[in-house]
This record gives sequence, C-alpha cells and structure tokens, in this order.
Amino acid sequence: MEGIAYVNCAFMSLDEAKVSIEDRGFQFGDGVYEVIKTYNGIPFAQEAHLERLERSANMLELPLPKNRLELEKLINEAVRRCSFQDAIVYLQITRGCAPRLHAFPNKVKPTLVLTVRRARPMPEELYEYGASAIIAPDERWLRCDIKSICLLPNVLAKEKASRAGAFEAILTRNDGRITEGTTSNVFIVKSGKLYTAPEGNWILSGVTRAITLRLARREGITVIEDFFSPEILMSADEVFITNTSIEVMPVVSIDKQPIGDGQPGQVTRRLAKLFKAEILQYIAQAKL
Amino acid sequence: MEGIAYVNCAFMSLDEAKVSIEDRGFQFGDGVYEVIKTYNGIPFAQEAHLERLERSANMLELPLPKNRLELEKLINEAVRRCSFQDAIVYLQITRGCAPRLHAFPNKVKPTLVLTVRRARPMPEELYEYGASAIIAPDERWLRCDIKSICLLPNVLAKEKASRAGAFEAILTRNDGRITEGTTSNVFIVKSGKLYTAPEGNWILSGVTRAITLRLARREGITVIEDFFSPEILMSADEVFITNTSIEVMPVVSIDKQPIGDGQPGQVTRRLAKLFKAEILQYIAQAKL
Repeated sequence: MEGIAYVNCAFMSLDEAKVSIEDRGFQFGDGVYEVIKTYNGIPFAQEAHLERLERSANMLELPLPKNRLELEKLINEAVRRCSFQDAIVYLQITRGCAPRLHAFPNKVKPTLVLTVRRARPMPEELYEYGASAIIAPDERWLRCDIKSICLLPNVLAKEKASRAGAFEAILTRNDGRITEGTTSNVFIVKSGKLYTAPEGNWILSGVTRAITLRLARREGITVIEDFFSPEILMSADEVFITNTSIEVMPVVSIDKQPIGDGQPGQVTRRLAKLFKAEILQYIAQAKL
Repeated sequence: MEGIAYVNCAFMSLDEAKVSIEDRGFQFGDGVYEVIKTYNGIPFAQEAHLERLERSANMLELPLPKNRLELEKLINEAVRRCSFQDAIVYLQITRGCAPRLHAFPNKVKPTLVLTVRRARPMPEELYEYGASAIIAPDERWLRCDIKSICLLPNVLAKEKASRAGAFEAILTRNDGRITEGTTSNVFIVKSGKLYTAPEGNWILSGVTRAITLRLARREGITVIEDFFSPEILMSADEVFITNTSIEVMPVVSIDKQPIGDGQPGQVTRRLAKLFKAEILQYIAQAKL
C-alpha cells in the first residue's frame, strides 16, 4: 500500500482523493499545512504541530473544521489504517471552495485534506558525511512565520539546489541576512556557540528547531537567536539544518566550499544524538 | 447555466471539475494563470494574455501542455459552448500531480484547467462616482512579474479592503514605493502627467495597463513609468486602477480621504472611454 488519504469526511486511496478546481487552495494558495512524522506509529511532537497549525490558521482567520482533539483522533485513525513503521502525515486545510474572488467568501466550508505515506528513510551518508547546500536569494513573502501552501519560491530555490547537486538551498534576504532553508531551519556553531535566525516574520518557527534549541540549552551551550550573514555562515565551525523529516542534518559544504574541516562537527553530532534520544523518550511515554 | 469547466482533456460542469490533492497547484501553488474577458463572444486581447501566460510559465520552467494555437482553439470552443454575452475565461496551468517533494518532479504531466463563467457587470456607480481604496503593506514575494497562483498576500489585502468598505487595496513596499493593487495596476494623474509603477519584478505587467499607456501616449499625454510614494498618491489630481475585469476604474477616495475634488477626473474619464472604444474596435476586427 502506497498510503492513504482523507478528504473532508472520508478515507480513500491517494488516487481517488480529489478537490474542486475552485478550491481556494488550488486557485489562491489560500491554506495552511503541517507535516508530522510518526515513529512506530506514534506522531512525534504532535501537540506542537497542531498548535502551530492553529496559529497559522488564526493568522489567516481560517476556521479549522476540527478541534485539537478531533484532529488528533483523525491522525491516529489514519496512521493506524496504514500500519507503516514510520510515516509522514501531511495535513492541509484550505478556506474551501467558492467562485473565484479574492476576498474571503461568505459561509464557506474549509477543506481538510490529510495523507499518510510511508516515510522514506534519508540516505545515511547525509548524516555520516554531511550534506551540501547552496545559498540562494530569499524571494518569499514577508510572512514566512505562517505555514501557508504558497510555496512556489521555496520550490524554485529547492530545484536550484537540486540542479547544483545540493540537498538544500539556504536563503538570504537581499540585506544580507540568512533566514532559513527552503524546507529547514539553519544553525551554525562558531567558537562553541550556537546561532540561528530568530523567530518572527522572516522564518517559520520549526518544531524541530525549538526542540533542538531546548536540548542545546540543556547541554549548557550558549544559544544566540539572531541573524547572521552569508560570510559568517561560510566561516562557521559547523552548520546544520533541521526539520521534521530530516531531524538534525550536518551541512559540510556550501556553494562547493567546505565548512570547517568539511566533516560533520562535534556539536552537530551531539545534538543529532540527543534529538534521537528525545524521539525515543517521546515514543516510550506515548505508549505508556 | 452557471458556466463550464475543462480539466486536462474534457469539458464538464463546474461541479464535476476536480484535481488530485497531490496536484502541485494545490500543495505548492506551483502554477500560473490568466483571466481573459470576452465581449460578444470575442476574447479581448487574447494574444497578449497568452503571451504573458507563456512568459510566466517560462520563468517557472513549466512546460505548457498546449501551444498558442491550441489554447486559442480551446478558449473559443469553451466560450462557444457557454454562449454568454460577456464572460470571464479563467485559465490555470500547474506543474501537475506528483508525491509531495519541493523540487520539480520527473516526467510529470502539467494540469490544464479552464473555466468560463458569465461576467458579472461591475456596479455602474463605481465608474460614475468612483471607487474607494485603502493603502496596505505589500507583503508579496519578490517576483510579482510572474502571474502565479500563490495569491495569499493579495487575498489578505483584498479582504482588508473589503472590510474597510473599499473596492481595492493599493500596496506599498516598506521602502515607500507604491507598486500596484491586489488585482489591478495603479495610475495617478498629476499636473496633466500620467504616472504608474514601472515593469519589473515588483508589479504584474497588466494587459489593460499596457493598452491604457498606449492610448494615453496616443493622446499626447506624458507617461512616466516610475515609482511614487503614498504621499504623492494622496496628493494626486486623479487616481485610477486597471485590470481585465474592471477595465479603467476611477478611484476617488483612499483611506477615506478624497483624491483631488473627490470625483472621477477628466483624464481618467477620457482613458476609460478610449479603452471602451478599443474593445469595440477589437471585436469588430475579430468578427471580420
């Protein structure tokens, strides 16, 4: 089985899952989403993801068709039906279907779409030897804190990375601030301190980012949430990226230049290990 | 009949028209669109719209599934099937359907969606007495020259206008440059000269904009394609907006302050009239 879909009120195969061409998600990008990874059938950090979904929807005044408990129940049911070891749960809510006019339609029912697919394991080399990245201009809108489905700039930059043989594009605003990756948050280690761009409208506040920062602080590492420039990035001792699917991944080369000694750094390795432990602990607790 | 839809290879009712939830238009906003108005069954300025569609698609390296002639044939067929006096043709192309990964998928077939709906006539008062607008921050991405379906920032600003009882939101970048409206290009008249923001990545190069500029130049009006500030906008003698559906519409009040004497200006009225004449001429020629 490839996976499963849920659209509005029913489960179905991925092939059968369709929405109207006048869904505002399709015509305007008027919707929000979340990606949750399950381990042994347990959706990791589900509450943080659903909290962020609620926040994104609130920012767009998009009423969620289900409350937190109902969403949790739905996700559990979908995951149970698939019985994959590890899975990617994708949840998308749009403002619903209406004749095409920009302003919010009256009395529209939001569209809820959910898919569960088997999690494809990331190539082990990316963790063992580190990933490569490019730097690309950040051409996104000014509300990157909202996890909206208007992802075309991310798509274009990710494609650029892919063509350069790189895993990720690290984005920089034209005033010289590194913000984040197309699908990840970006961290650097310099003289033992950990830096990452601050929360606010320039980045998506990553769930994995928040957990990583908590783990780093617990280890006694100084954490500085501030913007840094491409020059600082290139001269860092270590660089790593985080997101739900990749967890903590070392970046050892950017624009074909090595970072530090060109190998995954000690702090990155330590945080990646602690993150794995965090997942195991979460699963163990959830199973109690 | 409410209208008609065409999805990939077949005509159907609007209700039946659906796309996969894994269409990249729905999950990433990875697509482009055009809106064409027909008058007496003739799609006005069709070549300019299709040229722009090709340009938008090229910028995204999105291969169009039909060439210019095939698209013209399709539009004519769809318009003929509806036999509305005046209609709005909506054409959307997305990168197609694939399991969700940001970078371009291999060997994917683009999705072509077209709808034809009856053109709802704009309230005559908006032309007779003029429309109102608000000024709102331009929070869009940096490639506004591409007519992509990632329209969430436009949606949010248009909704803001709507709640303020205004017809349009005029957008300003945070460096104080007026760019355009959420769904229109913005023009001002000051001391007999016509100003509008220049083509480039900050605005969509409107088909109606280009025709209006041509007509103005033909009339001997000095045209200056340069950015202006909100202060200049507010102190203009006349303000008007253009797009395919509204043609040339006077704006007489912005943020509840009157523009000029609070009535549609002479230059605006003249250009609106010339634009109507241009349409009539286009239709007459097309019917030959």
